[in-house]
Amino acid sequence: MYKQIKDLAFKYHQDTIKQRRDFHHYAERGWLEIRTACQIATTLEELGYGVLVGKEIMDKDARMGLPPETIFNLNYLRAKKEGANPKYLEKVKNGMTAVAGVLKKGDGPVVAIRFDIDALGLVEDSTDGHYPLQEGFSSCHLGAMHACGHDGHASIGLTTARILMELSEHLHGTLKIIFQPAEEGVRGAKSICESGFLDDVDYIYAAHIMPRDDDYDLYFGMNESFATTKLDVIYHGVSTHAAESPQFGKNALLSAANCIINLHSIPRNSDGQTRVNVGTVHAGTGRNVVPDTAKLEIEVRGVTSELNRYMEIYARDIINACALMHDTVVEIKQMGKAFALNCDEDFMNQIRTLCQKEMPDLKLPPENLSPLGGSDDFSYMMEYVQVHGGKATYMKLLTDITASPHNTSFDFNEEVLNKGPRIMAAIAYSLLK
Amino acid sequence: MYKQIKDLAFKYHQDTIKQRRDFHHYAERGWLEIRTACQIATTLEELGYGVLVGKEIMDKDARMGLPPETIFNLNYLRAKKEGANPKYLEKVKNGMTAVAGVLKKGDGPVVAIRFDIDALGLVEDSTDGHYPLQEGFSSCHLGAMHACGHDGHASIGLTTARILMELSEHLHGTLKIIFQPAEEGVRGAKSICESGFLDDVDYIYAAHIMPRDDDYDLYFGMNESFATTKLDVIYHGVSTHAAESPQFGKNALLSAANCIINLHSIPRNSDGQTRVNVGTVHAGTGRNVVPDTAKLEIEVRGVTSELNRYMEIYARDIINACALMHDTVVEIKQMGKAFALNCDEDFMNQIRTLCQKEMPDLKLPPENLSPLGGSDDFSYMMEYVQVHGGKATYMKLLTDITASPHNTSFDFNEEVLNKGPRIMAAIAYSLLK
Amino acid sequence: MYKQIKDLAFKYHQDTIKQRRDFHHYAERGWLEIRTACQIATTLEELGYGVLVGKEIMDKDARMGLPPETIFNLNYLRAKKEGANPKYLEKVKNGMTAVAGVLKKGDGPVVAIRFDIDALGLVEDSTDGHYPLQEGFSSCHLGAMHACGHDGHASIGLTTARILMELSEHLHGTLKIIFQPAEEGVRGAKSICESGFLDDVDYIYAAHIMPRDDDYDLYFGMNESFATTKLDVIYHGVSTHAAESPQFGKNALLSAANCIINLHSIPRNSDGQTRVNVGTVHAGTGRNVVPDTAKLEIEVRGVTSELNRYMEIYARDIINACALMHDTVVEIKQMGKAFALNCDEDFMNQIRTLCQKEMPDLKLPPENLSPLGGSDDFSYMMEYVQVHGGKATYMKLLTDITASPHNTSFDFNEEVLNKGPRIMAAIAYSLLK
Amino acid sequence: MYKQIKDLAFKYHQDTIKQRRDFHHYAERGWLEIRTACQIATTLEELGYGVLVGKEIMDKDARMGLPPETIFNLNYLRAKKEGANPKYLEKVKNGMTAVAGVLKKGDGPVVAIRFDIDALGLVEDSTDGHYPLQEGFSSCHLGAMHACGHDGHASIGLTTARILMELSEHLHGTLKIIFQPAEEGVRGAKSICESGFLDDVDYIYAAHIMPRDDDYDLYFGMNESFATTKLDVIYHGVSTHAAESPQFGKNALLSAANCIINLHSIPRNSDGQTRVNVGTVHAGTGRNVVPDTAKLEIEVRGVTSELNRYMEIYARDIINACALMHDTVVEIKQMGKAFALNCDEDFMNQIRTLCQKEMPDLKLPPENLSPLGGSDDFSYMMEYVQVHGGKATYMKLLTDITASPHNTSFDFNEEVLNKGPRIMAAIAYSLLK
Repeated sequence: MYKQIKDLAFKYHQDTIKQRRDFHHYAERGWLEIRTACQIATTLEELGYGVLVGKEIMDKDARMGLPPETIFNLNYLRAKKEGANPKYLEKVKNGMTAVAGVLKKGDGPVVAIRFDIDALGLVEDSTDGHYPLQEGFSSCHLGAMHACGHDGHASIGLTTARILMELSEHLHGTLKIIFQPAEEGVRGAKSICESGFLDDVDYIYAAHIMPRDDDYDLYFGMNESFATTKLDVIYHGVSTHAAESPQFGKNALLSAANCIINLHSIPRNSDGQTRVNVGTVHAGTGRNVVPDTAKLEIEVRGVTSELNRYMEIYARDIINACALMHDTVVEIKQMGKAFALNCDEDFMNQIRTLCQKEMPDLKLPPENLSPLGGSDDFSYMMEYVQVHGGKATYMKLLTDITASPHNTSFDFNEEVLNKGPRIMAAIAYSLLK
Repeated sequence: MYKQIKDLAFKYHQDTIKQRRDFHHYAERGWLEIRTACQIATTLEELGYGVLVGKEIMDKDARMGLPPETIFNLNYLRAKKEGANPKYLEKVKNGMTAVAGVLKKGDGPVVAIRFDIDALGLVEDSTDGHYPLQEGFSSCHLGAMHACGHDGHASIGLTTARILMELSEHLHGTLKIIFQPAEEGVRGAKSICESGFLDDVDYIYAAHIMPRDDDYDLYFGMNESFATTKLDVIYHGVSTHAAESPQFGKNALLSAANCIINLHSIPRNSDGQTRVNVGTVHAGTGRNVVPDTAKLEIEVRGVTSELNRYMEIYARDIINACALMHDTVVEIKQMGKAFALNCDEDFMNQIRTLCQKEMPDLKLPPENLSPLGGSDDFSYMMEYVQVHGGKATYMKLLTDITASPHNTSFDFNEEVLNKGPRIMAAIAYSLLK
Repeated sequence: MYKQIKDLAFKYHQDTIKQRRDFHHYAERGWLEIRTACQIATTLEELGYGVLVGKEIMDKDARMGLPPETIFNLNYLRAKKEGANPKYLEKVKNGMTAVAGVLKKGDGPVVAIRFDIDALGLVEDSTDGHYPLQEGFSSCHLGAMHACGHDGHASIGLTTARILMELSEHLHGTLKIIFQPAEEGVRGAKSICESGFLDDVDYIYAAHIMPRDDDYDLYFGMNESFATTKLDVIYHGVSTHAAESPQFGKNALLSAANCIINLHSIPRNSDGQTRVNVGTVHAGTGRNVVPDTAKLEIEVRGVTSELNRYMEIYARDIINACALMHDTVVEIKQMGKAFALNCDEDFMNQIRTLCQKEMPDLKLPPENLSPLGGSDDFSYMMEYVQVHGGKATYMKLLTDITASPHNTSFDFNEEVLNKGPRIMAAIAYSLLK
Repeated sequence: MYKQIKDLAFKYHQDTIKQRRDFHHYAERGWLEIRTACQIATTLEELGYGVLVGKEIMDKDARMGLPPETIFNLNYLRAKKEGANPKYLEKVKNGMTAVAGVLKKGDGPVVAIRFDIDALGLVEDSTDGHYPLQEGFSSCHLGAMHACGHDGHASIGLTTARILMELSEHLHGTLKIIFQPAEEGVRGAKSICESGFLDDVDYIYAAHIMPRDDDYDLYFGMNESFATTKLDVIYHGVSTHAAESPQFGKNALLSAANCIINLHSIPRNSDGQTRVNVGTVHAGTGRNVVPDTAKLEIEVRGVTSELNRYMEIYARDIINACALMHDTVVEIKQMGKAFALNCDEDFMNQIRTLCQKEMPDLKLPPENLSPLGGSDDFSYMMEYVQVHGGKATYMKLLTDITASPHNTSFDFNEEVLNKGPRIMAAIAYSLLK
């Protein structure tokens, strides 16, 4: 049967590439994947999956880091114009862009696979030699670009769905193929977890396209990712003319400046690496006016969820104290959250054994795990499923890339679109057969 | 003759109002007073003045706080469309918007009067009851508004020019009526001084429309204004992924935050009041990226020029040290500068005597001086003329106002457009008769 | 009678000098003026005054900035050894060192005169040419020195008492001659006020020996002094090994460092000059230990009591917020407090008239007032008496000095010990005659 | 032969204990180990070693963190009074307290063993139940205490010397037994390295008494120690009266406060753990005086020498910038330095094999390495010898302790004084036999 999976992945390789290029061309940022989600839902429906969309698999209030109303509207209109399937369009608008295909085949385990689908807020490279430009599929949406491979993930997801549907008579149990919005900024996973859609999941796995640093085809899991919390902090003070009556102001910027410096001074922790960053600051209205607002985009991280909690608690103390210090009022909004990755050892070994036995042409690494580096909110699903008694891992699919992820000239070797569906489908089959 | 001046001011009152409302309607911000300057030049020419424009009375390199190229172009095109006199249009474009009318009548003193002509970067009040809206003359230029009375100043200037031209056969000496751009942000006076146009001036005076806080019609001078320096400070660092390799960044925001706090901590000075403000900050590009730039709009002030110098020197030390501290590079641009006002005692007494004797219907205050509160770059001209041996004062013209200056619902009682030209012309006549 | 007062002051001049040198030789710091107070009490008793000491005129709990127990004991033992009168010794020990001589002569106003008696914590100059050394009366108490003239004040006080007792048959009303401890650090006046001893006072005055900057003999009042509050701030954190487990510490020094910088950044106030200073910091126990305590000596000031209140309230906000910021606990102790001086205009004019009429040999200044510069807690008594309906002034007695006050080589021309008792007695006589 | 070594160590166990208690009783701090060094030199001489002292094995200028002159003198006089051998007394005074015993036995490798000998600046526990107090050997030097086991190290060193001398006829090569001063604060090792005394060393090893956290007798090496640099930083400003003329001051404390906060804000480093601490601050002279000096005791660390360098370079930038910021002058003194430990793998394996084969009664751990936690300047010798081609390791001798190291009630089970000499001698014998 694994031979057949291999053949199918190869047979659909050109379709997968085509689909990926379509997603790439119509790149959409987090919570705005309207056309993308409609496309996915339509395809899943055509393949024969039960299709769940928007509020059917999302807790609306658990979404984090939403864009403003006007942005929702503009992107809705654009998706409509670009031919988004009206059947799904209304369901996914206003940031309800999660989609899942469900296949129930009697008793057996519940297996979930997750693919993330959002683009980044970048302007894609338009210099000669950038492959997507050359081939005519670079982003037609200014300020949105797939520079992290999620276009690949989404198309691998659809081909995986196709392959598994063809094998469906051999499956026993339930398959849930999840297409998650807003992974960038670690904002989207929580809303799917909180909806209860993962409560019965026995196995969940996902994979990320990653630069090949050696000769291997994949890693069975990732470690050393950071747990992270994203906070928006807004200090509200009182403005006043800076020369005539400085004493009547409440200087939001003095609160912010102290906050910035002191966040960086949170003591190092001997239990492991921690991080803090104030990425952006916007404050004040004019040179001669005491600033009445200062807005900061902040993140803290730790290599364990415990270390991230240490950072977050200390950071909140500082943020609050800096308001008191200059008599301003502070608003703290949680904009994203991810736990540290904690892949199940025996699940990874199980996949390794599968590969060794059934896909001997793959080049396997000696260790199961490879570091992630950043943060990914698949960790949220991982922790959720583990807490509910299931097993999880987050794999690496290795391929050649042209520039580091999140760079405007990022691109990847589409050979991974052959290997990807094959591996993802093979794992599901092995669990459900 | 003073009776005649009074009558002329009254006769032209409605024209002055009309002119003021025109300036108000077509409000233009500092260095962008293209239509305004063309209008003034055209009128002065019609009245019979020798007209000097742009580089004829400005040192191009001494201008401070210029807007970017694109803004110049947009405003040029707009002024053109709005009918700016082509004869002057090319001369005043690209921030060369100073205009002067010169009248030479044989030997005698050189007398200069200065009027400022720029608007503020505000969106004018559009609620019912705002008089300019009601009367149909509120600003048609979104984001530009005369909320500091310079529309009144400019129209008073033109009527003053008209009255004095009618009396010209009685004058002996030289009259220079100066229309100065970019007073807001104290950016424009310097360029006129540096051109040498004031080198031979014996008397210079100006007046500002001010809220009547008691029953008087004017003050003969202002004191307690602040000398001030406006600086833009940009820290340039190196961005890096905040989680993967924070150590490779050079954090421009850490430089900026230290700068902000320490500027406020410059020691108080027992010689008099000082001020410092960081009015705006914009830093960073994304939450998870170490910020590579931070831009600050800063001002320092002191009630004497010496105190302002103390603040500026200390501020520059701090600004530079904060770059070294986090290994960033700093760019400091001077965006404006004004000295403290220092009105000549005997010149003010001379005007008081004139008023008492020739304009007995005016209500005069017991003291010559009243505080300014903020800063005004007429101080630059004042200091320049005084250093060259001349005398100077900066008066207050008191009238009722609807909201404080720089407020979006600011408006003033146009009765001052009667009194204004009368007083300004009377003083010139008394000096040149 | 004023001729007689002049003659008595001259007659006792050598005694006054002798007494001053005795006080200088046995200099005692604030709250420790044990020998000094006993000496004063004994002399007042000999002269025939009713003598009140310690708790009879002090509110024990209103004393501020007390030294530790052991210092009290050491100075008590020393004073005993140096022959302090046992009758008063027990009453004044442990910081109850205020003394007053009271004389009641029937009906009439209540007049109080205040003299301060404490020395500074300095090591007196021991180089050749320092007059007290040369004449053998420099301080025999290492670390205590009369470098602010209070030795002169105390001896002027005793001679004033002597003169007024000789005139007592001509007086009508009540005379209270007050010798106040702990003026340095503005710590002592409050305890006398709070005791109620000044409740019935109609007139209170005092004088300070001051450098003669021109040719005058005295000023009738002082202005521009600062209201001030002295605070000790102690942050208590938790120490930890800085390498092994920094995260377990609560860093008192981080709280303190933020406090220091932000205190200096309290906005300037357009109502007048303010001040802030962190004079000393002591923190930590070892290089590799996160500091668990940091102690700061702080003062704020304002040229009005209102401005001082503005500073104190803002400072307390900052101090408290800095504890929250790094999760430490803060202790704030008020160590001293003085109001701004506010001398009564008509009382000063009354004294001027007296001088002009009865002491025509004195050289008088054109203005009543001269600036104080620093702070003096006579302001506390002044405000207290004024609030209770009385009048008050704080005068300057001008003389030549060798170095600025609070300098280790400070000394003054003892000619002021002739003029001082004469003027102080004459004023009391003029009020009580 | 190893049996004989075991027997000798046992035979001399009581002497070793006696010697350790003598060192404990006369505890001496770093650079002040005068009596201790004389004792060691005398004993080595009696045993037959060539004895090198002070400048014979130290580079005077490479010593770091020296106490002041007066402290040298006081401790010299005390050591003299306590019977220090006059032959060595003059050689070791003024901080030249290193001692070495050298034994040359023909051709063969050069083997060095290092023992550190200084006490800490603590007041020893004087409550019941503290064993040294109970047995009458607690420190008779107030403010000096062996709370890190160096008394044990020194006595182990002498017994090791004794055992090896008894076996000397079996040795081939050169033995250097080094007694190093001032390990606390990582100040002493550098001066021995810089003298050239280690240039020819083929093997160097040392051991530290450590708490037994499990059942093992020793570890063959330590890792994860921190490289560290100790700096004293003194800001020199200008004092001024904080109320009268704050602008004339240069506030050393503002420099210091900024330095403190910003040192803590040095970015985390993804290559590994770093540390920074400002352990103590002393600043200012009086509440109302702008502080003219601020002294800080600082340390930085990194788990590799490279990471420590990153911290030190960044810290120096901050320290210097904070001087510029408030126009003060800064003095930076290096008070100590240690590299990260880097034990040679094959040397550790060699010792493990020795233990397994010749000392089978010892309980050995499965790993060679155990973490150090803090810093130790044996790392300086280790790096020096490795750079010169030799091999090195730093072992743990495990025993029960009563309180953590550097605690005032620290004590250790003296059973380690039996095992210690046995193991240290056995290793040397195995290398030189």
